[in-house]
Amino acid sequence: MVDDRIGSFEDLGPAYFDRGLYFGDGVYEVLRSYNGKLFALDEHMARFAASLAAIRITGIDIRTVRQRVERAFQAAGLPNAKIYFHVTRGSAPRNHTWAPDLKPNFFLTISEAGDSSREKARGIAVCTCPDLRWKRCDIKSLNLLPNILARKEAVDKGCEEAILVDDAGFITEGAGSAFFAIIKGALQTAPLSANILPSITRKFVVKAAQNVGIPIEEKCITPRQAAGADELFLAVTTKDIVPVVKFDDAVIGNGAPGRLTKALTAEFLKFTA
Amino acid sequence: MVDDRIGSFEDLGPAYFDRGLYFGDGVYEVLRSYNGKLFALDEHMARFAASLAAIRITGIDIRTVRQRVERAFQAAGLPNAKIYFHVTRGSAPRNHTWAPDLKPNFFLTISEAGDSSREKARGIAVCTCPDLRWKRCDIKSLNLLPNILARKEAVDKGCEEAILVDDAGFITEGAGSAFFAIIKGALQTAPLSANILPSITRKFVVKAAQNVGIPIEEKCITPRQAAGADELFLAVTTKDIVPVVKFDDAVIGNGAPGRLTKALTAEFLKFTA
Repeated sequence: MVDDRIGSFEDLGPAYFDRGLYFGDGVYEVLRSYNGKLFALDEHMARFAASLAAIRITGIDIRTVRQRVERAFQAAGLPNAKIYFHVTRGSAPRNHTWAPDLKPNFFLTISEAGDSSREKARGIAVCTCPDLRWKRCDIKSLNLLPNILARKEAVDKGCEEAILVDDAGFITEGAGSAFFAIIKGALQTAPLSANILPSITRKFVVKAAQNVGIPIEEKCITPRQAAGADELFLAVTTKDIVPVVKFDDAVIGNGAPGRLTKALTAEFLKFTA
Repeated sequence: MVDDRIGSFEDLGPAYFDRGLYFGDGVYEVLRSYNGKLFALDEHMARFAASLAAIRITGIDIRTVRQRVERAFQAAGLPNAKIYFHVTRGSAPRNHTWAPDLKPNFFLTISEAGDSSREKARGIAVCTCPDLRWKRCDIKSLNLLPNILARKEAVDKGCEEAILVDDAGFITEGAGSAFFAIIKGALQTAPLSANILPSITRKFVVKAAQNVGIPIEEKCITPRQAAGADELFLAVTTKDIVPVVKFDDAVIGNGAPGRLTKALTAEFLKFTA
């Protein structure tokens, strides 16, 4: 039954029996291109392969996925594209377990990358939210309900992102971004763990910091420390570096994107050329 | 792009843009009928309404959902039916946030309830698995990746169910069932909390225990305590009470369904008449 319509199983396409829908049984990636060039494709494919392996989806060759991404990118003809793709375990009548020969489903969308120049110029407001997610956030899975609920809570408060805080009182990351603070001239971000997505943008931010000579400290900070930071920013695939100028009720720095954040953004831009 | 096929957004039906697929952004129920009568429909609808509210899905009337369930049940003509249904927040191009007027999607399947007489007669084997789920397992959401991975791990070990153990070393529940022990004549099960689904079958098991005079202790037990229990069983909507005769490496009781488990099963059966 779909809404009010009763039919037989055969009337419905495989999308209605996708395990991605029943269980969130799939993994995804988002990548983008800058001026006609896909950014960090190798890194995204490596992470995707790791996500597939972590949830035991076999039966799809990572080279096939890569070829499809490249083919879709060429076909779309968008120089600054945002590409989303996922692979789910496949379509079958709902059952917790699965057949070993189930054929995974591949799905990809490509669209113009949004313009984030305004956010980059002005900075954004963020607010804290409890981190309710599962214990394997290092897997980029389709189980994103806590993420979208946190984001919505933030948006309802007039913020652009939710910053997640674990039971111990430490910031893990944003609902859809990595989180960075600059405190006394050093870049601080949470160390990678099972609770944090190994962000590819994070990796390039760290590289940018090394290039411009900003020391990096991988350690968890509290909301209180973040509120008192000299600068804050997010790293997100679709927008690279986004300055944060308000954290809960605290205005960060002088309420405008900070000096080191700008330096890192400029350095990051070089990687995308 | 779907597998190797490139098309435009308009070529694809709403199932491909379901937020249930992208985020697990939906909630579900499973109920069954016994001999032509839906069991615990009120309870399932009340829990479903609570799940919808918890993830802020509005725009669907719970009475409409109930009417659809009843209509589908009548149309199917299956006296012993298993009914699955979910509501997702709706279909839209992927975006963490959502429009307030998004129309929720309803989906229901109905099929013959499986025969569980063999499991009930012989009992099943279960094994423990870390509870990796999020912190709102009281919401019956489509974010079920940790559940299906745990179940698969159990099945690979020759077991029928995974019993989830939290960081503190206590059993929460099964990957798709409630968990009960009988220790020194008393029925023990974890108290309801944000980490546990408010199982409807559990509620009727407790009622059955009251009817047959078995004292109930709502407290968490460890795998070690479970392994040494006099009797163990699971409660699950589709099969009501399923005896457990093996817990990790421990044989429970004399390796056959226990006396009080059988008494509870007989008492439970009366509710379904």
